[in-house]
Formats: sequence, C-alpha cells, structure tokens
Amino acid sequence: MNTTSLPCKELFSIPSHLVYLDGNSLGPPLRGSAELAAHVVNEEWGRELINAWNTEDWMSLPVTVANQIAPIIGAPQDSISAGDTLSIKAYQALAAAIQMRPNRQIVLSDSGNFPTDLYIAQGLIDLIDKSHKLRTPPPEEVLDNITEEVAVVYLTHVDYRTGRMHDMKAITEKAHQVGAVTIWDLAHSVGAVPLELQESQTEFAVGCTYKYLNGGPGAPAFIYVRPDIVTSIDPAIAGWMGHKSPFAMSLKYDPVHSVERFRIGTPSVVQFKLLQLALKVWQTLDMKEVRKRSVHLSKLFIDEIESRCPALTLTSPRSSAMRGSQVSFSYANAYSVIQALSDQGLIGDFREPNIMRFGITPLYLDEGDITRAAQILEQVVSDETWRRPQYEVRKTVT
Amino acid sequence: MNTTSLPCKELFSIPSHLVYLDGNSLGPPLRGSAELAAHVVNEEWGRELINAWNTEDWMSLPVTVANQIAPIIGAPQDSISAGDTLSIKAYQALAAAIQMRPNRQIVLSDSGNFPTDLYIAQGLIDLIDKSHKLRTPPPEEVLDNITEEVAVVYLTHVDYRTGRMHDMKAITEKAHQVGAVTIWDLAHSVGAVPLELQESQTEFAVGCTYKYLNGGPGAPAFIYVRPDIVTSIDPAIAGWMGHKSPFAMSLKYDPVHSVERFRIGTPSVVQFKLLQLALKVWQTLDMKEVRKRSVHLSKLFIDEIESRCPALTLTSPRSSAMRGSQVSFSYANAYSVIQALSDQGLIGDFREPNIMRFGITPLYLDEGDITRAAQILEQVVSDETWRRPQYEVRKTVT
Repeated sequence: MNTTSLPCKELFSIPSHLVYLDGNSLGPPLRGSAELAAHVVNEEWGRELINAWNTEDWMSLPVTVANQIAPIIGAPQDSISAGDTLSIKAYQALAAAIQMRPNRQIVLSDSGNFPTDLYIAQGLIDLIDKSHKLRTPPPEEVLDNITEEVAVVYLTHVDYRTGRMHDMKAITEKAHQVGAVTIWDLAHSVGAVPLELQESQTEFAVGCTYKYLNGGPGAPAFIYVRPDIVTSIDPAIAGWMGHKSPFAMSLKYDPVHSVERFRIGTPSVVQFKLLQLALKVWQTLDMKEVRKRSVHLSKLFIDEIESRCPALTLTSPRSSAMRGSQVSFSYANAYSVIQALSDQGLIGDFREPNIMRFGITPLYLDEGDITRAAQILEQVVSDETWRRPQYEVRKTVT
Repeated sequence: MNTTSLPCKELFSIPSHLVYLDGNSLGPPLRGSAELAAHVVNEEWGRELINAWNTEDWMSLPVTVANQIAPIIGAPQDSISAGDTLSIKAYQALAAAIQMRPNRQIVLSDSGNFPTDLYIAQGLIDLIDKSHKLRTPPPEEVLDNITEEVAVVYLTHVDYRTGRMHDMKAITEKAHQVGAVTIWDLAHSVGAVPLELQESQTEFAVGCTYKYLNGGPGAPAFIYVRPDIVTSIDPAIAGWMGHKSPFAMSLKYDPVHSVERFRIGTPSVVQFKLLQLALKVWQTLDMKEVRKRSVHLSKLFIDEIESRCPALTLTSPRSSAMRGSQVSFSYANAYSVIQALSDQGLIGDFREPNIMRFGITPLYLDEGDITRAAQILEQVVSDETWRRPQYEVRKTVT
C-alpha cells in the first residue's frame, strides 16, 4: 500500500509503539514543547519576573494566539478572543445572544450536544429569569425546530460521540431568516474540517484548542464574535482585561472597542505559549488538503474495520460530507475493548453508552497507522482479549 | 546588622543582581519549576497522552491543589475549588451571594477595591436585573454602610495600592448581624497574612495564586465556600466538571455534592502542576512566623526609606496591624522612579496615580535585600536618575 503523510508528521512527538486515535480528545505535543515550557519558566518568568508581561509580550499573547486561530476557521483578524475554558466562552456567547433577543424565550440546542453546553445554558437561564426554555430535539430535527420563538440556536457543529456534522450554512441561514442568533461550538470542528465563519454570518462561535489544534491539556479556549456586533455587546463577565484601559484602574467598567472585551482575567501564560507553538504548524497547512486526507483515512478505517470486525456497528454517518474527523463504532463491550486496545498500543476512547470513538488526525497519522489500528482492533475483538478481568473496572477518561 | 532569612529562601530562583519587591504582583519560580514543566510536557502529556488524565492524576489536580491552599488560609479540607481566574471565581461567588438574598438590592464594596471585582459586579447586575446597586464608599466607611438593605458585602481584604487591611472579623460579624452575605477577595492576603476563614464564618472567599503563592503567570485561582451552604447553591456557571458524574454525559445538570460544583471546565494542567510545586514550600512554614518576618522587614523598609528619602510619603498604614505584606509610598514622579529603579536592580511597581508599591515577601527576602533596596531607592531619588528621558514613556505593567 502506498503510504503518504503530511510533511508535518515528523514535527509531533508520539511514542513509536502507539497508534494514537484520540487526538480528537487531546492532541499530542509538537516537538520542542518541553524545551519551550522550560524556557518560559526559567528565562521569561524566572529571569524577567514581572517585567516579562512587557518584555516577553505576555500581555498580548491572547491577541497573538487568537489571530493564529482565525485563518484556520475562516475568520478575519481581530475577530477572536482567546482564554479561559470552552464552558466560559460558551457562557459569554449565550449571555450575549439572549440579551440580543429580549422578547424571545427559546434556546434551541440538540440532544447530541456536549453536556457542558447544555449545563451552561441551564445555569444561565436559572440565574437570569427562569422564563427561558432550553429545547433539545434530536440533531436531525433541529432545522424543523427553528421557528420565530427561538432566540438562539446553540449547537455543537460536530457531535462528540458520532462525529455527525450539522449543516452550518443551512442552519445559520434558517436561524437568521426567523430572526434568531446563532452560536456554534467548534470543539470537534476547529482543525478538523474547513470552516468559513465569516461567510456563514454566524454571530458567535466558541471552541477549544487541546483537541485538533494540539494546544495541550487545559489549553485556552476562544470565542469568535461577528465584527459588526462586537461593540454593541456588554459582556456578562466583565473582567479587567476586557477594559479599554485596564491599568488606569478606573472604578467604572468601560469595555475596549474590540473583541478583546471578551477577555476576562490574567491569561495562563505557560499554556498560551504551548498553544502558540502548536499553532505554528498551521501556517504550512492548507485546511482543504487536511480535510482531503482526513476523509481518505476515515474511509480507509471504516472499510478496514467493517471487513475485519463485522460485530461492530458504524455509528458515524457513512457519508463523509456529514462527518467530522472522527469515526465511531458501537459495540456492547465497548468500554472493555477500549481498555484492551490501549494495552495493545491503540489509543481510542469510550463514550457512554457503548461507543468507541477514534479520532482521524492527518497531521500525524498516515495509512500505515490506520491499518495497524485496524489489525489491533481485529485481534482484540476476535481473540476476546477484552474479556480479561483488568478491563472491566471503569476509570475516568476525558 | 544581623541578617536572617527563612530556610526556604534558597528554594527560589531569583537573579542575584535583583532585589525583587514585586512578589505581590508575580511571585518568582521555585527551583525545579522548569524541569517540572518539561517533565509534564514530555513524560506526562507526550508519553501518556489522553491516559494522563488518570495515570498522572490530572483530573484530581484541582482537588489536590485546593487542599494544599486550605491550611494557608485557615480553611478546612474540601472547602475550596481551584481553577479559572480570580475574576471568574468572584463572579461565581457574587452570583451565588445575590441569589441567597433575593429581597435585598445592595452590593456593598469600597472605592479601594481592585477594579475587576467592581467590573464583575457591574456586569452581573446588568445581566440579571439592573435593579441591584453597587455601592463603593471609601474603605474607612464600609463598616458604617453595612445596613439591612445590604445583600452582599464584597471586599478585597488588603488594598492593592496601599496595603491597607480591612478588619475581616469585625466586618463579617456586622454583615451577619444585619443578615448580609460576605465575600472576601484574598488576592493580596493569601500567603501574605494569617487568615482564619473557617473561624470568620464568611460565606465566600476568592483568591489568586500567582502573587504570594508563587504559582506562576496565569496560575489557577480559587474559591472558598463555607461548607454548610455548598450544596444549597446552584452554580451560575454550570460547567461539566462540576457535575456529579461528568462522564455519564447526562443532558441534565446535576451538581456534585461538594465544593467541586464550582469547577467549570478542563483544568489548565501545566499551570496546576507548577502551582502544586510552589505550594509544597508552605508545608514547612508557619504562617505566624511568615507574618512576623513580614512585619519586621516592612518596618525596616519604612524606617530606611523615611530616613533616606524624606520626599516620599508613606501611603500604607503605619500600624502593621492594619497593613498587609506590602509597603507603598507616593511621590509625584513615581512612574519614572519605578522605571529607573528597575535598571538599578530594584523591582517594585507603579500604580495610578503616583504610588510606588513594594511587596515584602519573607519567603525569599531578608534584611540584606531590604537595606539594598533602600540604598538603590535613595540613590535614584537623590541623584534624580529618574529624570532621564527613557523613564518617561509609560508601559503596561500588571
């Protein structure tokens, strides 16, 4: 078989005995990340101390990093603010969106959304008035549920379990036709599929950077706000870093006239630096080429598994046009299989109730990896390796 | 002069040519921090990848770290949740406190509070109903303003500019007498002065860890919640990490029955690990001894400066009982002086409008450092070194 990989594969540090199909959960480090972290601690923090906020440009890191993310998702420069966690960025977006439609009560999401998005909505609604309602129809019924009662359409673009991808263009258009605001959670899209945020006209998008962007565990999240509405929004979480002049120490909140008003507190400098390094790889990549490789490797994986492991059922859409950059199979003993695979060198992950999830990340995977993964999975399922007692006890996996 | 230092001084890595009196803004790294950061990246993230959430106990880091902070502030185990930034923890505390007193409209703070606390209150009030009012009398008048209209008393314990310290016990008692809830921002107290949170009966406290706790730039913040009220609070920012079973992926938010319900999203693992190392030093320290050294060094600094630099005016309380662990002087050309001092090896910082702020951090400062600082300050003021043109232009310093 002809094995090809993107030239950036060699930039990643992954143990050679592993096939890592969990980059949709936590991407691996770029080579040089450890040295960078040590440098930031010793040479920046340790040597420059407080002055590093200026001399090492720590204060502008959120802006720099946000502008590195922008081209990956089809957003213009200075339309993204980076920091905090995805849950917090979702909270900021939803609070703003609800305030933009004061006479509507429905927040429309779906039952496939990642739970934190739904929890954030529930907590926010309880806080502000309890009269808003969160609706969660099945993903396939979202479009039909976009009516004139809806204030906000609040969806995760690619389903974390199945990889099913919403039609962002069609949903955003319909939402705008009925006067609703849209928020897209890009957790499983950014770096996974081509996005055209500016073209989509969505008001908000949020995302995390520790999956397909390889920013590291706990890397900063981000929020995109459509440039024409930024200055009309009073941020619900009004932190000093979003003030137009934070060091004037004014008693009155006066947000900066840019998307940086969505900054809140002190940036996590070491995490930002690691993310900044990881984002450099995207300068050399064409997202369409990444997608082409993702589709090719995903199809190869599906074909291999379906021919080798007939007991597994594909739960991802078969059509690549409806799928992000992961492939999921259901199997009654999915939890135990995932544990057994790990011991054989294949890392995937488990999601309730019976889903095995495999991230297809072409930046560091090639056909050889996919074939090896299929061989390991075939062996574990056919030999029933997963029946060993050590694979029964459930542990926490994010 | 008899120079003594705490035994932990040697554990810190500070360039020998500097006297660092800005640990109240950003504490220095412990030796070994760079190696730890590199280890976390290469050996944990790089080698274990997603499995590190379990094998390296990443998932429990916020709990571990919170329980390291607890004894430093007189809080019981499992009464603190660590993560995010101080602004976000303040938001969580204030949202909860306001909901606890639904029939009262006044949030009482003071005009010396750090601006982000006030901004957070303004943003939250605008979001929920706009009928609450934020009052900010001068710090000296807070006690007289605690009346039965007050829902929440929301104060920073030690003033970031002057080092003036509120009487936590008296204010909390008066607040409780009139039925108000209290929130103490400990940004400039934790690791600086002895605290007895449990004894104070305060409902909430929040703090950051990059100042006197030396956790590093962007280190996680924390929230303390009085144990008897934890489970009665529905967190306003309802993130999945606060769910009682995050990986069950339930669509309904059901917060865990502990202070961990104030967790929100994925923890910033690298920052947490650095903080965890920095907190180890406190296991060998008696906070009362730290305070004794702080008072002694602060008095020495005030005496030295007042005798050497009569043009400077002490803006910190002269009584150590009313002062945290910093000493501030006002001077018309404070900004330029601070820049000139930096070039002479003395790092302090400037705060509007004319304040020079010096952190007295006995973990790594001794009498020799204080005397050297006084000598440098005397020289810069008497020689008017600060008049050089390069010290005029204002830069951003946090």
